[in-house]
Amino acid sequence: MGKNRLEAFSDGVLAIIITIMVLELKVPHEASLDALKPLLPVFLSYVLSFIYLGIYWNNHHHMFHATRHVTGGILWANLHLLFWLSLFPFTTGWMGENHLAPMPTAVYGFVLLMAAIAYFILQRAIIAQQGPGSLLAAAIGKDWKGKLSPVLYLAAVPLAFVNPWVSDGLFIFVALMWLVPDRRIERVLAKREKE
Amino acid sequence: MGKNRLEAFSDGVLAIIITIMVLELKVPHEASLDALKPLLPVFLSYVLSFIYLGIYWNNHHHMFHATRHVTGGILWANLHLLFWLSLFPFTTGWMGENHLAPMPTAVYGFVLLMAAIAYFILQRAIIAQQGPGSLLAAAIGKDWKGKLSPVLYLAAVPLAFVNPWVSDGLFIFVALMWLVPDRRIERVLAKREKE
Amino acid sequence: MGKNRLEAFSDGVLAIIITIMVLELKVPHEASLDALKPLLPVFLSYVLSFIYLGIYWNNHHHMFHATRHVTGGILWANLHLLFWLSLFPFTTGWMGENHLAPMPTAVYGFVLLMAAIAYFILQRAIIAQQGPGSLLAAAIGKDWKGKLSPVLYLAAVPLAFVNPWVSDGLFIFVALMWLVPDRRIERVLAKREKE
Amino acid sequence: MGKNRLEAFSDGVLAIIITIMVLELKVPHEASLDALKPLLPVFLSYVLSFIYLGIYWNNHHHMFHATRHVTGGILWANLHLLFWLSLFPFTTGWMGENHLAPMPTAVYGFVLLMAAIAYFILQRAIIAQQGPGSLLAAAIGKDWKGKLSPVLYLAAVPLAFVNPWVSDGLFIFVALMWLVPDRRIERVLAKREKE
Repeated sequence: MGKNRLEAFSDGVLAIIITIMVLELKVPHEASLDALKPLLPVFLSYVLSFIYLGIYWNNHHHMFHATRHVTGGILWANLHLLFWLSLFPFTTGWMGENHLAPMPTAVYGFVLLMAAIAYFILQRAIIAQQGPGSLLAAAIGKDWKGKLSPVLYLAAVPLAFVNPWVSDGLFIFVALMWLVPDRRIERVLAKREKE
Repeated sequence: MGKNRLEAFSDGVLAIIITIMVLELKVPHEASLDALKPLLPVFLSYVLSFIYLGIYWNNHHHMFHATRHVTGGILWANLHLLFWLSLFPFTTGWMGENHLAPMPTAVYGFVLLMAAIAYFILQRAIIAQQGPGSLLAAAIGKDWKGKLSPVLYLAAVPLAFVNPWVSDGLFIFVALMWLVPDRRIERVLAKREKE
Repeated sequence: MGKNRLEAFSDGVLAIIITIMVLELKVPHEASLDALKPLLPVFLSYVLSFIYLGIYWNNHHHMFHATRHVTGGILWANLHLLFWLSLFPFTTGWMGENHLAPMPTAVYGFVLLMAAIAYFILQRAIIAQQGPGSLLAAAIGKDWKGKLSPVLYLAAVPLAFVNPWVSDGLFIFVALMWLVPDRRIERVLAKREKE
Repeated sequence: MGKNRLEAFSDGVLAIIITIMVLELKVPHEASLDALKPLLPVFLSYVLSFIYLGIYWNNHHHMFHATRHVTGGILWANLHLLFWLSLFPFTTGWMGENHLAPMPTAVYGFVLLMAAIAYFILQRAIIAQQGPGSLLAAAIGKDWKGKLSPVLYLAAVPLAFVNPWVSDGLFIFVALMWLVPDRRIERVLAKREKE
């Protein structure tokens, strides 16, 4: 079974999620700069989630670049990932509207954690399908970013009740960590093509 | 006429339906865990409908994998299916907001039933176009899942007025039945490719 | 310049328009059948517009099937068509919410008229680009459906103030007229391929 | 790395942005023509933003037509552009609802400016990747439109507080300037193919 429709469907869902988040930025009725002020935390949450979804799209893109065939299991692992990502508009809106209060921040972190776990499961499903000598396994290597991220999200959930800014700092740190483009897969692919 | 645009359009519509359902999860104004409690039935309905739409996307994917050409009749049978699926966000939201009350549960079941019938019509239209020796007909075989599902949905509609939990149980049962990946089409295709 | 991205973008926009219309079907707060009654005209308007958008998608699909190259003019003629189609959710919602009152019905007809004109312009732009011996010109032939439809929409606008049901009848009549699949393009294409 | 998924994802996001803007045209409760009057500025803002997004889609289409390979940097430069474009529904709705008042007009201009800068960065990233003899660099030539537009947006921001109609005039002027189809890239590509 080809991977094209899976990629097209995932691109569609990610494009919609990243775009409907902006609907949480409710148009204010007044025309003054003051009317924008209460929207600032909503806007900042939007920026953070936009970057996270951009990272997921980027990594998804790279992961399926190193994938030839998809099975029923991979289709469902992918839908499972899309499910958690589809909750981003909700958690982003809730965290933004409540000015980064503890509970919404913790729930935001929880959904990030679940998405990271879903991504990990999808990665394992592809590697399992590829068997020994898996291109993807070689490409991700030790995958320390993939392993560190869920640990930091997990830490961010209880820390939100101590101080939500610590959790927000962790979210920003993980995002920056991934923003450094992940050249591992490109590198391994380029190497194999040479051989 | 090629099937690519039909697939692309269907992927687009399904991606949007699966994603705008999440807009029914209205962001609460308070930042406490209590504020999430009334959203629980909405969330559970969302999970159920997400799984159903995932199943439809999966089966649609497999069905058109076994299809080469599309006719005007197939295009309209496909739009007819998309129409009933497009009502999922409405019925999901209504059932969720009313904590799985009888009438919304019955209407939810009715829309599931109509979607199942539309899927069946689409399947017959493709088989009719393929004529004797239809690849799709061979692939789906006796199609007991496809025949049992509408019967269970039909039963769930009146049962919602006896006890909506019985209907919900049936919806969950049918979803689980389909979640077992449908390897029939993959198997028949693989077999034919060998021959 | 290839036509693929134009088709993909149009499919995306049409998929979104056809789907967000359903958001006008606001989830009622009560769980009774009575709560659905005021939604009936909204639902019927939704069905009508869904069919119209299905027809546009179908015809668009056929038209670009008979098109090889696109120019800047064709891109803009296509965007112009998408603009008028993007107003369907608004006019559908307005007509539905006001139980098919005269003014919303007239505006609904006006937007149908503008979309039909935009479709006609797009068709002429493609035929002009193809020059003499245009495949599309041969395929559409006398195009009596394309010529009759705007006349009927134009009649429906003032008739809405006499009796909106007459206009609604015209809208339904035109939709049924197009639902008969348009085999002209398929036929001409099949013929040319034989030659 | 191929450009197909980048194009597909961008098309998806642009299709959604251009379509959800129409949701700011809230369906009025009354059925009279008077009920449409307060929507007029919202409608005009919608038309303007629709044209701008059409221009961006058109230029994006041409730009990637002259691009073979994409890097991680190009992916992020593209997401950066989509981020600013995703704010169009918000600024369009705010400007429209407030009848083109100074502050919303200035913010509308600011987002146009940021999108123009993001487009410029994306263009530079592609040219840098193509190295000397870049096809895109040859195609855009002196790029006076690309250089004049941000200057006019920048002027429109403070001018909104003098008279918002001056800013609106500038926005319309820039849109008209771009509506003249950009044949540079087509011309250079056609020339190279001949050689």
